[in-house]
Amino acid sequence: MKLDSLIGQIKQKKSFLCVGLDSEFAKLPAHLQSVETPVFRFNKEIIDATAPYTIAYKPNLAFYESRGLEGWKDLELTVNYIKENYPDMFLIADAKRGDIGNTSRMYAEAFFNHLNFDAVTVAPYMGADSVTPFLGFKDKFVILLALTSNAGASDFQYITNNANKPLFMEVIEKSASWGTEQNMMYVVGATKASMLTNIRQIVPNHFLLVPGVGAQGGSLEDVAKYGMTKDCGLIVNASRSILFASSGKDFDKAAAQEAEKLQKEMENMIWINKS
Amino acid sequence: MKLDSLIGQIKQKKSFLCVGLDSEFAKLPAHLQSVETPVFRFNKEIIDATAPYTIAYKPNLAFYESRGLEGWKDLELTVNYIKENYPDMFLIADAKRGDIGNTSRMYAEAFFNHLNFDAVTVAPYMGADSVTPFLGFKDKFVILLALTSNAGASDFQYITNNANKPLFMEVIEKSASWGTEQNMMYVVGATKASMLTNIRQIVPNHFLLVPGVGAQGGSLEDVAKYGMTKDCGLIVNASRSILFASSGKDFDKAAAQEAEKLQKEMENMIWINKS
Repeated sequence: MKLDSLIGQIKQKKSFLCVGLDSEFAKLPAHLQSVETPVFRFNKEIIDATAPYTIAYKPNLAFYESRGLEGWKDLELTVNYIKENYPDMFLIADAKRGDIGNTSRMYAEAFFNHLNFDAVTVAPYMGADSVTPFLGFKDKFVILLALTSNAGASDFQYITNNANKPLFMEVIEKSASWGTEQNMMYVVGATKASMLTNIRQIVPNHFLLVPGVGAQGGSLEDVAKYGMTKDCGLIVNASRSILFASSGKDFDKAAAQEAEKLQKEMENMIWINKS
Repeated sequence: MKLDSLIGQIKQKKSFLCVGLDSEFAKLPAHLQSVETPVFRFNKEIIDATAPYTIAYKPNLAFYESRGLEGWKDLELTVNYIKENYPDMFLIADAKRGDIGNTSRMYAEAFFNHLNFDAVTVAPYMGADSVTPFLGFKDKFVILLALTSNAGASDFQYITNNANKPLFMEVIEKSASWGTEQNMMYVVGATKASMLTNIRQIVPNHFLLVPGVGAQGGSLEDVAKYGMTKDCGLIVNASRSILFASSGKDFDKAAAQEAEKLQKEMENMIWINKS
């Protein structure tokens, strides 16, 4: 997908919401745990219910790999279902991969060609040649981990060099030259929204994927305040708060309500203070 | 597998060689490209041919995921074949995973329970709570990326803090307290063997997984010289130089020759200058 199409979707739907498909089998409503391809069945209902309010879906690979072959089947069915029925959705593989060049090329093959994802999250630790193989695919995106939303983010991402620059800023600064705004985005956790001011000085226009709203406690208002650009520039993810809003048969309706609530908040934030 | 069993294998076989199963479909000998479960068939012959000379196998997940469901089937068959026929082999999932706590727990589930790996490689960027979920499994190991063998390693791993300590040393120092020598190892590339002296000052006994010998040009002799402990403390990996030593029908014999050559070199290095 081209960046312009994503921006078009955001304007049309007045939403920058991504639903994270962290679809843990053990948390599925009871009536779905004994059917075939249970996670796909769950995802399908979540997707149909939330599609009017969202512009992106983000399956997290761990929740599929944990069930081996069965999990991969559910993942492939989910990806194909979205691409067939909602071709304008931005589809993110939350995989956090990254390896030496010839290996990263294989991961890119997995997510961009074998599965038809638009973007994949990548970990920066191994440097340029672990990231650039993902950038050689037309209309596909790397979303590089910069500042994550978990407690452990402070262990290494905040370490400052002798010019007092934290590692996550060095990651953004150095990597910004590896790609362009048309093929790179960054993960910046909502729990560190005030850091967005500094980040926007380095990458004023790149899109940011923002996890940590909802279950992890980040503020949507702060994210918009500090991170929004003239093209929005934000994809805000919510996973558990939407997927598991209800554990009963009405889980899809409850998910839709949660997604709509976030979309309504977003509607009031988009371009209000931007020209 | 317990660390003592691994050390026992190393002593018995006079080898600390790991064969990396980076089994790229496009590189398989022609006669195997049209059979069912082709990568498993290739791996099976490689394993049977090289087992006398090796103490570990390390499938790299990218080469399986790139073929989707078919690839995962080959991976599961490979893991099961090794565990059934060579139960003393140390089995490493080269996956370089790492995510927020509840997600890392799912990856651990995938590699330690669903698949029966002994160890998984993990990326450190997201910090403690992305690594510790892998440490809660009895007789299983995290192998944390510290200093990798690729060119991009210098982009971030060498960045020094205001006490002049490079990031990879900070990663080792901080993470050493998260686990023990019984459940943690580190990846240190053979291409940076001289750094092993500094690393051994921080983790004198932890096992190190050393890629980069062979195709990437690292020196086995230097690795042993700077990194060996009284229990060996090293697992040296070779992938392409063994797997693709011949592209003909004799690929298994050629692989065995390459593996034996490395084992003979190792035999002369083990405990020569250690008490």
